[in-house]
Amino acid sequence: MNYQRLVEIIRERKSYLCVGLDTDPAKIPAGVSMLEFNKAIIDATKPYCVAYKPNIAFYECLGAEGWEILEETVKYIGNDHFTIADAKRGDIGNTSTYYAKTFFETYGFDSVTVAPYMGKDSVQPFLAFENKWAIVLALTSNPGAMDFQLFQQGDKKLFEEVLEKVSTWGTPENTMYVVGATRADMLADIRKIVPNHFLLVPGVGAQGGSLEEVAKYGMNENVGLLVNASRSILYASNGSDFASAAEKEAKSIQLAMAATL
Amino acid sequence: MNYQRLVEIIRERKSYLCVGLDTDPAKIPAGVSMLEFNKAIIDATKPYCVAYKPNIAFYECLGAEGWEILEETVKYIGNDHFTIADAKRGDIGNTSTYYAKTFFETYGFDSVTVAPYMGKDSVQPFLAFENKWAIVLALTSNPGAMDFQLFQQGDKKLFEEVLEKVSTWGTPENTMYVVGATRADMLADIRKIVPNHFLLVPGVGAQGGSLEEVAKYGMNENVGLLVNASRSILYASNGSDFASAAEKEAKSIQLAMAATL
Repeated sequence: MNYQRLVEIIRERKSYLCVGLDTDPAKIPAGVSMLEFNKAIIDATKPYCVAYKPNIAFYECLGAEGWEILEETVKYIGNDHFTIADAKRGDIGNTSTYYAKTFFETYGFDSVTVAPYMGKDSVQPFLAFENKWAIVLALTSNPGAMDFQLFQQGDKKLFEEVLEKVSTWGTPENTMYVVGATRADMLADIRKIVPNHFLLVPGVGAQGGSLEEVAKYGMNENVGLLVNASRSILYASNGSDFASAAEKEAKSIQLAMAATL
Repeated sequence: MNYQRLVEIIRERKSYLCVGLDTDPAKIPAGVSMLEFNKAIIDATKPYCVAYKPNIAFYECLGAEGWEILEETVKYIGNDHFTIADAKRGDIGNTSTYYAKTFFETYGFDSVTVAPYMGKDSVQPFLAFENKWAIVLALTSNPGAMDFQLFQQGDKKLFEEVLEKVSTWGTPENTMYVVGATRADMLADIRKIVPNHFLLVPGVGAQGGSLEEVAKYGMNENVGLLVNASRSILYASNGSDFASAAEKEAKSIQLAMAATL
């Protein structure tokens, strides 16, 4: 999916919600398979969101079977939603190329999350595919974000260096950044470095970030935001009504988003 | 495999060679399947090495079939070699736990390479499994290593901060570090920060690093080194004699290693 189409569906659906498919076999209702659960969640939430983000770890840990579930899930999502492989990959050049092929070609994702630690030749292979995207970790929403991402050279923090350097390797049409909602106060400064890029913002909902603050400090003229919610939607109910509870939660987030647009 | 056993097999075989199973379908001889290739390489090299390191990208890109090849390969390696899933994983806590389960439990690896960018809660889950290891990226061998790993706060570079902080989360019995052989001159300084840890050293061979320099600056009293070679062994010949060519190359590296012990 290209930049223009992504902005279009955001405007049409008045939503910049990304549903994180962190489908945890330990948390889904008894008797429901992972694939059935994903399909039910997709059916229930698709009018209210613009993107889906399977968390690859939850599939990978099941071995070959998990990868089949992932493949079926991506097919089921179809082409009206932006798809994100939340895989946090990154390796030397030829290896990154294989990771890019895995998610863009083998599984047909629009984008992959990428860890920047290994630098340019680890990120660039993800930028060589037409209408495909690298979503690079900048400032994450977890407590460990403090350990290295705020490391500071002169006036500049590591995540700022990542934003600046990576923005010289790609464009706002093939690169996004992960910026945690739990750091909403830093979004205004981040927007000075990357005014035009999309930001993928996890941490709203279960992790406690505020949608209003993210919209206030992070939105640009093309919206430029994908705000992710995973657990608050997937596990809105742990009973057999999980899909209708997920629908209700996704709709409520969409309405809150519409108010910010 | 625990620390003591790893040191034992290094002493027994007079080798600290790790064979990187970067098995590239485009590079293996026609008519030979990936699994047949891996088995032939393992048979040919096992007396001369102490570890095998499948590069997960090369398997992952084949979808479910690739993961089956990986599983069969790990089983075939058995318990007399240390196994490394070169996966460069790292995510927030519960997700990292799933990645750890994937490689330690689903596939039975001894260790996984881990990217440190997301900090403590992304690394720690890999340290919670008995006799399993996290091998954390510190200073890598690729050109992009210059982009962020040398970012400097005061007198300290980012990779030094990684070595220092991660060493407070784990011990030399469950943590190793990746340090590229192309930075052998920096190994002496690295040994001041982590005198007792094993270092996984890629970049000897095809990437041009020197074994003698790595041994001179990097070895500690328990050897403390796993030096990886991938392409120079796997593709020593592109003909049907690939296994005997791999054996010859592995033996030659082992002899050079024996001379440094």
